[in-house]
Amino acid sequence: MRSDIEIAQSATLKPISELAQYLGLNDDDIELYGKYKAKIALNTWERIKNQPNGKLVLVTAINPTPAGEGKTTTTVGLGMALNRLGQKAIIALREPSLGPSFGVKGGAAGGGYAQVVPMEDINLHFTGDFHAITTAHNLLAAMVDNHIHQGNALNIDPRQVVLRRVMDLNERALRNIVLGLGGKADGIPRESGFDITVASEIMAALCLASDLMDLKERFKRIVVAYTYDGRPITADDLKAAGSMTLLMKDAIKPNLVQTLENTPAFIHGGPFANIAHGCNSVMATQIGLKLGDYLITEAGFGADLGAEKFLNLKCRYANLKPDAIVLVATIRALKNHGGVTKDKLAEVNMAALEKGIANLEKQLENLNYFGPPVVVALNEFPGDTQEEIELVRQKCAALGAEMALSRVWAEGGKGGEELAQKVMAATAKPSHFNFLYELEQPIKSKIETICQKIYGAAAVNYSKQANDQIARFEELGYGNLPICMAKTQYSLSDDPNALGRPTGFTMTIREVRLSAGAGFIVALAGTIMTMPGLGKTPAAEKIDILPDGTIVGLF
Amino acid sequence: MRSDIEIAQSATLKPISELAQYLGLNDDDIELYGKYKAKIALNTWERIKNQPNGKLVLVTAINPTPAGEGKTTTTVGLGMALNRLGQKAIIALREPSLGPSFGVKGGAAGGGYAQVVPMEDINLHFTGDFHAITTAHNLLAAMVDNHIHQGNALNIDPRQVVLRRVMDLNERALRNIVLGLGGKADGIPRESGFDITVASEIMAALCLASDLMDLKERFKRIVVAYTYDGRPITADDLKAAGSMTLLMKDAIKPNLVQTLENTPAFIHGGPFANIAHGCNSVMATQIGLKLGDYLITEAGFGADLGAEKFLNLKCRYANLKPDAIVLVATIRALKNHGGVTKDKLAEVNMAALEKGIANLEKQLENLNYFGPPVVVALNEFPGDTQEEIELVRQKCAALGAEMALSRVWAEGGKGGEELAQKVMAATAKPSHFNFLYELEQPIKSKIETICQKIYGAAAVNYSKQANDQIARFEELGYGNLPICMAKTQYSLSDDPNALGRPTGFTMTIREVRLSAGAGFIVALAGTIMTMPGLGKTPAAEKIDILPDGTIVGLF
Repeated sequence: MRSDIEIAQSATLKPISELAQYLGLNDDDIELYGKYKAKIALNTWERIKNQPNGKLVLVTAINPTPAGEGKTTTTVGLGMALNRLGQKAIIALREPSLGPSFGVKGGAAGGGYAQVVPMEDINLHFTGDFHAITTAHNLLAAMVDNHIHQGNALNIDPRQVVLRRVMDLNERALRNIVLGLGGKADGIPRESGFDITVASEIMAALCLASDLMDLKERFKRIVVAYTYDGRPITADDLKAAGSMTLLMKDAIKPNLVQTLENTPAFIHGGPFANIAHGCNSVMATQIGLKLGDYLITEAGFGADLGAEKFLNLKCRYANLKPDAIVLVATIRALKNHGGVTKDKLAEVNMAALEKGIANLEKQLENLNYFGPPVVVALNEFPGDTQEEIELVRQKCAALGAEMALSRVWAEGGKGGEELAQKVMAATAKPSHFNFLYELEQPIKSKIETICQKIYGAAAVNYSKQANDQIARFEELGYGNLPICMAKTQYSLSDDPNALGRPTGFTMTIREVRLSAGAGFIVALAGTIMTMPGLGKTPAAEKIDILPDGTIVGLF
Repeated sequence: MRSDIEIAQSATLKPISELAQYLGLNDDDIELYGKYKAKIALNTWERIKNQPNGKLVLVTAINPTPAGEGKTTTTVGLGMALNRLGQKAIIALREPSLGPSFGVKGGAAGGGYAQVVPMEDINLHFTGDFHAITTAHNLLAAMVDNHIHQGNALNIDPRQVVLRRVMDLNERALRNIVLGLGGKADGIPRESGFDITVASEIMAALCLASDLMDLKERFKRIVVAYTYDGRPITADDLKAAGSMTLLMKDAIKPNLVQTLENTPAFIHGGPFANIAHGCNSVMATQIGLKLGDYLITEAGFGADLGAEKFLNLKCRYANLKPDAIVLVATIRALKNHGGVTKDKLAEVNMAALEKGIANLEKQLENLNYFGPPVVVALNEFPGDTQEEIELVRQKCAALGAEMALSRVWAEGGKGGEELAQKVMAATAKPSHFNFLYELEQPIKSKIETICQKIYGAAAVNYSKQANDQIARFEELGYGNLPICMAKTQYSLSDDPNALGRPTGFTMTIREVRLSAGAGFIVALAGTIMTMPGLGKTPAAEKIDILPDGTIVGLF
């Protein structure tokens, strides 16, 4: 088997203008970034917005394990398979962050024969969107400290500046800093720190915005600090939103690339799936729906975090209704959920598999609350047995879900035809869709609905801090925002070690944050790392570009 | 008179592919970034490197004053004028930094009818080069702190980490920080800070590199820290150069844009002109020389800083020989050098003008040391009188320099025809070119040659720190690097208030820094600000993008 980068570099790419043409876009609709990347012009939407929508398919997964599920790979493969079956399918994915590329080996553009290309560009600076987000975010932060330094007319409490700075790198040493040192000319000293760019509220706002002016309005609402008397200070108070929006004038345009089989793919935006909602941009999704028969998109982490937010946050803001949901699992990951350690995953263990399937069953039950039909994609590995596969199929059927085997990693679109056919059948049925909660419910009621219905928690506890924050946000008029849960991705609960289907547990909400610009309240169950560090031997030490242009060590 | 942005937005741009064709470039030589920006592919150089060179013309100026000289405007106008006269002229400029765009109103792409376009893109993210530099620099910084955190096998002294971090914004509050706070998992606390990206050694290295592999070698040599026993630690010791180079794989490709009159312009790289050498990239200059009859480029600040470094640093590393030098001045600026305050510059004052011309004369004498013929471009303002202009002409003639009036700001290329004709005549003469010093001279001898010959200093003092650093760098084997002087741009001396032609002064070298990757020793005479701050009312507060796409407040 060749490596991902070898497969990617031997692909026959079509000029991106040819793909644009295939999608019905003309020369004025695209802005080329080299031969194989393009941005979609802002005014294209006006021209196409009255075209009928294609079918919206969400790809999600069981709780991730070290065994890997292949959610992105399945998304890419499903799009390619639909194309092989004569459908005009379009894929919509998140942009990868630079930080992990140089931290842990591994890109984020699918894998094997189900990749998006040019993967080296997508995994490096791509079209500069993340740099624009970093700059817009840090300009706002600079304006906060400058305001305090220049007389602080708004009465900002330097101890209550909630906006941190961002950098698109794994930067442990910048997690906690003291800035403004040096003396009278160098600002006011205070504690702060950096998060990774995907954790920026600018990123979440970009991905939920309907257009550039909506993005500006979201920027205006970002709460950056509180005054000594507790009043929120927004980016609008600092007159920063215009400059921030100008910095985003190109970043807001969705990026068009292609798969190894020349399926069109939008890759745009990439918010964290814990403190943010973890989906690609609304704009890319909506444009894709207008241009294709099928728009296949994915949500971050497992269905408990990713799909829940896709459905309750993104679909609510963008007025989207999924026609089908694909839930990805592997036999190996299910065995892991059943208690089998990583080194023994190759062995058949029906008892562990049956126990682990409980995770899949709970995620299926959860998706059934929302309404759209679900197809389980079992991402097949060489050692999987017929007996194991049959058990998964039966459990899915019991919950009303079809199961399809997927071999897209090894075979590309051809290996996804069974899945594609079942997805087509599912989307042909009439689809119902309901949100899990109403915005008018009190903050705690919304949190508890998610914790009890989706995670299966018996009860929800709040720290004193969280109680105070909830009261404050409701008092300030932010009570009607939807909830963005931040918890471990590894478990349905808030304990990363509770695999399978934990029950009877109590969730503890430690902290509640306001993302008024993005448009949600973040409820944190546990400590969420918003700035990763580099490991003992970071991938960066092995990465290189050779005299002939060959890239090594990146994937 | 219309504003710069109004003129720029009403320009008729040619598709950049058409300009590339005019330059003899084919489809594989360019990578489009939208319709009006392109990068030149890396392998183009191999194809064109044996073509004969065009004429190299450097544009420099007297010491800058608040009155403004219009050096970039003259560079752009001269290129347009040569084109009007049937010459294939190409312009090579530096890329502007984002920081000042949001700090002080004013872009950096020429002005009036002598601008480079699309100016709003050039002044915002452009093709992402500065973001790549920021990322490569900060990845190296992250690897330094990560190394210390992960056991510090190289024995780095955290108090002797010389590499700071960078951000392309005006960020006073980040000038001096303490990082690594938070506890055992969050790194080792130490003092550090951020510079603006144009001050990054990565930027200087990019601009002096001959190709991507030379850039990698320069990265390897960057000294990031010293060990407890005083040994230098390089980026190569940290195995960072490969990743940094990969991050620069597109940033190293020169950017092609055009003037308002469709003259081709390379805009690539933009190092500071104090702690770095202040010129656009060697690669852009060399490619431009191969593709045009004339390559017009500029150097930062006045000739004492900018031209000296262009000639002693850039020309030395790139094996370039200028065929002519244009020295830009204005009557108003000369009067300012003669003691007239900004509010009285419109009044005729022959005594002050005569006194101020001494600055022009000294810069002319200095350029004569190097050999190439000099043409003085007097950037004409409405109130300038015949008598004033004649005085300047006589003084120039006495030093062997032709003078030409330039009206390119108001008239575009048409207003630069006299200058263009005199430049053509100058370049037709045989040109001599010598460096001011030899690399083999001791560091102090090189510093003193510049201070005495170029600045007119009577003597040079060294702080104890500078003495120690010079001794250390020579001991470590860095003694043969050329010198990069960092001093105020406003005066020939190290005192920003000493206008005109100061004499008898003593220069004080306060500090000496090593830029082993870029390839020079920085000698600092005075305090150099490497991270600007925002003002009381930053331009960012006024900048906006309107629903119809109109940009306001940026220029």
